[in-house]
Amino acid sequence: MIGESLSEPPEDLWPEVRPDAARRLMAAAVESFAARGYHATTTRDIATAAGMSPAGMYVHFPAKSAVLFAISRSGHERTLRMVQTTLDEHDDPVDAMRALVESFVAWHAKRHVIARVVQHELDALTPDDHQVVLELRRTTEGLVRDLITRGVEAGAFTVPDVRTAARAVLSLGIDVARWYSPTSKPVPEVLGKQYAELVLSMLGNR
Amino acid sequence: MIGESLSEPPEDLWPEVRPDAARRLMAAAVESFAARGYHATTTRDIATAAGMSPAGMYVHFPAKSAVLFAISRSGHERTLRMVQTTLDEHDDPVDAMRALVESFVAWHAKRHVIARVVQHELDALTPDDHQVVLELRRTTEGLVRDLITRGVEAGAFTVPDVRTAARAVLSLGIDVARWYSPTSKPVPEVLGKQYAELVLSMLGNR
Repeated sequence: MIGESLSEPPEDLWPEVRPDAARRLMAAAVESFAARGYHATTTRDIATAAGMSPAGMYVHFPAKSAVLFAISRSGHERTLRMVQTTLDEHDDPVDAMRALVESFVAWHAKRHVIARVVQHELDALTPDDHQVVLELRRTTEGLVRDLITRGVEAGAFTVPDVRTAARAVLSLGIDVARWYSPTSKPVPEVLGKQYAELVLSMLGNR
Repeated sequence: MIGESLSEPPEDLWPEVRPDAARRLMAAAVESFAARGYHATTTRDIATAAGMSPAGMYVHFPAKSAVLFAISRSGHERTLRMVQTTLDEHDDPVDAMRALVESFVAWHAKRHVIARVVQHELDALTPDDHQVVLELRRTTEGLVRDLITRGVEAGAFTVPDVRTAARAVLSLGIDVARWYSPTSKPVPEVLGKQYAELVLSMLGNR
């Protein structure tokens, strides 16, 4: 079955993508890239895994790299939106950071297969696509940096270097996708809460 | 030139490996795996990049996966040795953790190309080779866990969960290899010092 190694059905993973055939191709691509790497996967592999002919795939994606881009852009956009929503919901920098780490970490644990492909294959994107993704990452990192700065100004955080601290916060969350597996403990939400406490402590919140 | 993307010549990267031809094959393999992924790299690609024939490569490595294993085992053994040496040199848990993070982070920044290949291609190892590497990782993680426990008992650290804290410490260091590039700032040693302070703070050291 397509998407068996993913934690959710394609329609939940990519609700913004239409039609369903495009989402099934994305799920098939994630699984092929995860198993063999991007370069060793052919468009035929992806189409076949999604129950289509290669010609059927081209209706939705002009090339293999377009499928990778759709997966990567969606992941980065959703992460950015998650961070933005969290910031909108919490005025207090400590509350905002706690909520941000909780959801960021749980997201990377739950969707570790997709997140891992997205991280591993960044360099396989076309230069233009890479730029779009890098811009989304820069925006997300900027929001985290601003939040830490706000916390430092409010006396809630003490860090030697805001840029390095922001990198460390995001790094902790992203790396969860590397080591998390379906048999890992604790469950994503609990891990998110544990990491949130570690991050607040790391940022000097007493 | 072989090893151009690596930070050091093959004889410095793998001093324990003999003869030089084997080290050149390992350097060529790292670069091919980094550029195209393990599965899309052939033994011929590796041999050619090292200036040899495929038959010449088989004198040193019976298969492509044996080259990957040599690279992966060496990286994990050296990391474990680094952690052990640091623990031998420092009795105080705070001093030990500071030194450990400094060298662990600097190592992953400096050797990010190799470390990234090692992380990405863990699943490509044969089951037996994978076990050897997992055992080295478990031992390293156990040492970090014991160090945190010792710090908690001495009243120097306060963490909600030792296992998660140990994972977070190692995760911060390993993930440096993902995002670090030759143009990254600060330089590996300074980054190591910044991360050491963040980690001590994360572990509740005041």
